[in-house]
Amino acid sequence: MSTSPLVKFPALSQVCLKCIRCESTFDTAQNLYTCEKCGDLLDVSYEWNSRLVSDYRKLFDTRRASANPLDISGVWRFRELLPFYTSESQIVTMFEGNTAMFDAPRSAQYAGLRQLRLKHQGLNPTGSFKDNGMTTGTTQANRMRARAVACASTGNTSASMAAYAARAGMKGIVFIPGGQIAYGKLSQSMDYGAVTLQIDGDFDAAMSIVQEIARETDIYLLNSINPFRLEGQKTIAFEMLQQLQWQVPDRVVLPGGNLGNSSAIGKGLKEMYSLGVIDRLPKITIIQAEGASPLAQYWSSPSGTPFKSVEKATTLATAIKIGNPVSWAKAIRALEWTNGTCISVSEQEIADAKAMIGRDGIGCEPASATTVAGIRKMVAAGQMDPDEVVVGILTGNVLKDPDYTIQYHLGELYQKSERRTEIVKADSPLHSTFANQPIQVAADKKEIYKVLEHILAEEHNN
Amino acid sequence: MSTSPLVKFPALSQVCLKCIRCESTFDTAQNLYTCEKCGDLLDVSYEWNSRLVSDYRKLFDTRRASANPLDISGVWRFRELLPFYTSESQIVTMFEGNTAMFDAPRSAQYAGLRQLRLKHQGLNPTGSFKDNGMTTGTTQANRMRARAVACASTGNTSASMAAYAARAGMKGIVFIPGGQIAYGKLSQSMDYGAVTLQIDGDFDAAMSIVQEIARETDIYLLNSINPFRLEGQKTIAFEMLQQLQWQVPDRVVLPGGNLGNSSAIGKGLKEMYSLGVIDRLPKITIIQAEGASPLAQYWSSPSGTPFKSVEKATTLATAIKIGNPVSWAKAIRALEWTNGTCISVSEQEIADAKAMIGRDGIGCEPASATTVAGIRKMVAAGQMDPDEVVVGILTGNVLKDPDYTIQYHLGELYQKSERRTEIVKADSPLHSTFANQPIQVAADKKEIYKVLEHILAEEHNN
Repeated sequence: MSTSPLVKFPALSQVCLKCIRCESTFDTAQNLYTCEKCGDLLDVSYEWNSRLVSDYRKLFDTRRASANPLDISGVWRFRELLPFYTSESQIVTMFEGNTAMFDAPRSAQYAGLRQLRLKHQGLNPTGSFKDNGMTTGTTQANRMRARAVACASTGNTSASMAAYAARAGMKGIVFIPGGQIAYGKLSQSMDYGAVTLQIDGDFDAAMSIVQEIARETDIYLLNSINPFRLEGQKTIAFEMLQQLQWQVPDRVVLPGGNLGNSSAIGKGLKEMYSLGVIDRLPKITIIQAEGASPLAQYWSSPSGTPFKSVEKATTLATAIKIGNPVSWAKAIRALEWTNGTCISVSEQEIADAKAMIGRDGIGCEPASATTVAGIRKMVAAGQMDPDEVVVGILTGNVLKDPDYTIQYHLGELYQKSERRTEIVKADSPLHSTFANQPIQVAADKKEIYKVLEHILAEEHNN
Repeated sequence: MSTSPLVKFPALSQVCLKCIRCESTFDTAQNLYTCEKCGDLLDVSYEWNSRLVSDYRKLFDTRRASANPLDISGVWRFRELLPFYTSESQIVTMFEGNTAMFDAPRSAQYAGLRQLRLKHQGLNPTGSFKDNGMTTGTTQANRMRARAVACASTGNTSASMAAYAARAGMKGIVFIPGGQIAYGKLSQSMDYGAVTLQIDGDFDAAMSIVQEIARETDIYLLNSINPFRLEGQKTIAFEMLQQLQWQVPDRVVLPGGNLGNSSAIGKGLKEMYSLGVIDRLPKITIIQAEGASPLAQYWSSPSGTPFKSVEKATTLATAIKIGNPVSWAKAIRALEWTNGTCISVSEQEIADAKAMIGRDGIGCEPASATTVAGIRKMVAAGQMDPDEVVVGILTGNVLKDPDYTIQYHLGELYQKSERRTEIVKADSPLHSTFANQPIQVAADKKEIYKVLEHILAEEHNN
């Protein structure tokens, strides 16, 4: 088994935290999440030495056959582009990334594309793309000699943080709002030994308290405001390019909630471009749910209109039910860098697209299905060419929300039912267009054959 | 990107179906699931030409860097050892396998081992090891030009079959028993477009009808009696060995339910040994749940005692709640070949072991946790040496049964609760030994700091 060639990392002085607005710079060893001067978001910023590696593609490709844990990881395989740590011993990995990229012929046909590939980040160790970012976030926590890591989250973030904290041998602390606990979403962080603190008040209160605590103590904050998480998430683009044998697609389409993923992928693509690893940029195309679409609204508004949060976000795609996305400014930058765009899709479009992705044998969270829904909408509107080479990023595992799937196929998704009490309003009536309900049959072979003939004839006609 | 060297497969005449009892042989193109003469199980049996490949390890290692879909698959990467298909175009793959092997230090300490590795088949595309076998089963269905594929299942098998049927462009038909449907376990097969037929009667009735239909029609049966599924599952051992850089461990420990996995891994190891890829065999160690432990009972009974099914299997580890395992005879053979063993563990041991695996940041189905529980029991009884090199196989994703995790940590697992109505009897009182309940705190920083100090001091003392 070949080991990777040794690569000399730039000295730490060539890495800094840089404010995306006022461009103030700070030491990466500072316990800092936003700019000390203007309060805006920070980037982990590098001064690249382009002569460091003669052939990045070859280096990264060779590592795929290596048995070194850092080479096996779909994040750290690209570690020359993540040179913020000071020793490999700080790295916390669960072999994240390495996710499959599927050809999705039925989804492609449904969306109106000649071909469509779906890269599935829900196949990560804890079932979502968050793992791509937690591996770098926890590594930075290690480097900072943090006493514990913390986040406010009731979903994928808490699951991922808890697992990586366990890996790092650190305590993970999850802050959740008061009221009734939705245990389904907490099962993983409980399993991985994180402490759950339920704080009197709403989600914003929990978030505000955990941020204060992170400022005042050596407990390290791993919410998506943390710029080191985005360093790991940017490698989703790297791995996608590697899987495409470094042929740059025309578009990368991804769901937009907190907008950290779009921001990270934009940053990563720009870095690869500036280092000459790729010679053009794919258009980043962000799809939001209509009820939680502040960026789509901003993007279609007249020039000069300021970015505005959505007061009360509504969508059954809980992973992107966010009205005030943390990384909106970074996402706008990513769209500008790559000549990208942002649109929104309806609950109906999301639900039907998810069913169609399922027909390709690929399960995903509802939020992930915005990709296929968005592509379909853009192709229909003439905003996307059927011949474009497109990769959609699926962000979460289908098992994160089995109820949604069940209710869709039983035709109960948008009705008040025992199985789901939350209702999302829609302007037009909603249907389970591709419902797939169980069929009851007597234990009689003749009856069963009759049903089977009917089903298989139908299949033949499709 | 290097392509794989061309390998000439043995002509089909060198492959047959062979009865494990009377050794009758049949053509692999026959629609056959059991021996036509004596009714016992069939093996896919090969006459190896050992000069076919000069260095298997090198061939398989080189492929890890390849972009060929068959090389990316953790099953088909080893295709020289699966030469039952007649054309690569028959192969249906979702890049199954390629699952992480984690170091599990807390579980090792808990079990009394110096080191323990856990290979996680729950990170497969549909969340269980079944994908390893469905890729080969569906490939054979393709080769047979089956009109559809079918199985009787309410769990992981139906999810996996449905996904691979979708990939193959075939209809998948899932037979389930009458009565109330547990939709949670059906969400994936509904999503992937399989037809669910609910047949009046119990599970055995559904199984018996689907077997009859498979015999009478061109609908191909993909339950675990199908010998082609085991061909894929045997590669779990191959990939494990590859990840260990071909150093053979002392033991492979895995859960025992239907016993197909143990059977397959035994067959695969023996084949690798006979081809000279490895020079010794690890002991296969099967762990069953006490309430569903026919093999453990047989294994500890006096010589000459016949194998006996368990009338009514009980365990909360639903994936191994099987009293009459299909592959028992093949599993016994695997234990004999590898000088292995089989024991059972209690519900309490399973639950606590699962929590301990969680503390390593690794989530799994309850059934998977029998591995760590069994190792602990054997080390304590002096049947396993603390210095042994051991790999445990985790078979299912934690998200397949979030309720179990939640109830354990809330201390509700073995009590009648709103969340779980099924109760498993235990002889002794049961405890959530490592319960991890949420802590309620007022939105007051002083209060929160008090709680945090307490938690972190506790952590320090552990």
